[in-house]
Amino acid sequence: MKRVKVSNNVIRRLPRYLRKLDELTESGVSRISSFELGNQLGLTPSQIRQDFSCFGEFGQQGYGYNVPVLRAHIASILGIDRGFTAILVGVGNIGRALMDNFCFSDWGFELKAAFDIKPELIGTVFKGVPIYGMDSLESYLSDNHIDVAVLTVPKEAAVSVAEGLTAQGIDAIWNFTNVELTGPNSDTIVENVHFSDSLLSLSYYVAERRDETAAKAGRERQ
Amino acid sequence: MKRVKVSNNVIRRLPRYLRKLDELTESGVSRISSFELGNQLGLTPSQIRQDFSCFGEFGQQGYGYNVPVLRAHIASILGIDRGFTAILVGVGNIGRALMDNFCFSDWGFELKAAFDIKPELIGTVFKGVPIYGMDSLESYLSDNHIDVAVLTVPKEAAVSVAEGLTAQGIDAIWNFTNVELTGPNSDTIVENVHFSDSLLSLSYYVAERRDETAAKAGRERQ
Repeated sequence: MKRVKVSNNVIRRLPRYLRKLDELTESGVSRISSFELGNQLGLTPSQIRQDFSCFGEFGQQGYGYNVPVLRAHIASILGIDRGFTAILVGVGNIGRALMDNFCFSDWGFELKAAFDIKPELIGTVFKGVPIYGMDSLESYLSDNHIDVAVLTVPKEAAVSVAEGLTAQGIDAIWNFTNVELTGPNSDTIVENVHFSDSLLSLSYYVAERRDETAAKAGRERQ
Repeated sequence: MKRVKVSNNVIRRLPRYLRKLDELTESGVSRISSFELGNQLGLTPSQIRQDFSCFGEFGQQGYGYNVPVLRAHIASILGIDRGFTAILVGVGNIGRALMDNFCFSDWGFELKAAFDIKPELIGTVFKGVPIYGMDSLESYLSDNHIDVAVLTVPKEAAVSVAEGLTAQGIDAIWNFTNVELTGPNSDTIVENVHFSDSLLSLSYYVAERRDETAAKAGRERQ
């Protein structure tokens, strides 16, 4: 695929578009205007048209977007059809939660193996995924092509495990450890999951709600 | 605090500013220009100035921002100093992972209690947080002021538990269930954690990297 450099903000919006298009498909909507799509996503129609224009022309003037066509196009831009492979390193609570509840295959990823140091886990299979010892990670990675490592080890182990992974050729890490892994010069693609960003957005809206309630009560007392 | 309506995109950027300012503080940086801050965050200086201008004036023309002052201001806008309280509902893998590793108090939240249906959990204390049975949720909520419910129950239970929570006066839910909880008319503040958005952004960057590598290899063959 021919690629143009696209801003991170656009890239971050693509998964939201995808989720919305899946919702629309489920509700039987097969065509939507940029106006209505923007309305449902809290974006302006022109922003939506501009975002999509980064990747070519999807809509027809006056006809809106064909939902399944647009969905397929965005999925492809996001690499869902690439057959990416993943391993998970660290089968603690969060690792187990991902293996148990997160459907990697829905997003085009095959979770091929997990790794841990706990002897009672090694050699077992959880949700169809074999768990190996950390000492077999290196040989596993030299025998298998893996695109992404899901890093769910404890904080203390994060940096050393990440360094080991990149030394063994992993160039993309999905990082759940809340530890900053790389400087700006590193060649590794790191996607950090920051639960706190999400909680703080919620916190903002709660604070706003409490202020509104207090202001309303104040006005009523006057 | 006097509040103006601020766009969701600005609100979503505030936690990222906060993390960056914490990083700067840790590295001993006490003053930063909007140019340098933008550079480190992949935003333009004018976008940063515009974001902050929603909340008043923080910087001095030509002097940049005072890092601790800006940090305190953003923390306050996000409600970190409000003393918000939370309960967690559903002590499965993801609930346990949050109780174990996520420091609610760092973000101004007190996690006061957790709830589950499993008899072996009820009456225990995990990481200082008492776990009660679901049947005592209603009386707990009538006796305690709780700002946010963290929803970590299994998918199948998500909607009914959320409905129960809102019926009992909870107006903010941090939703880890991947189930859409509310229509646009609902009064409940719902913050959804979508792991897939994060993985798909990573997927995009990996696809881009693979394309670049393939293009380079193609050029070298010519």
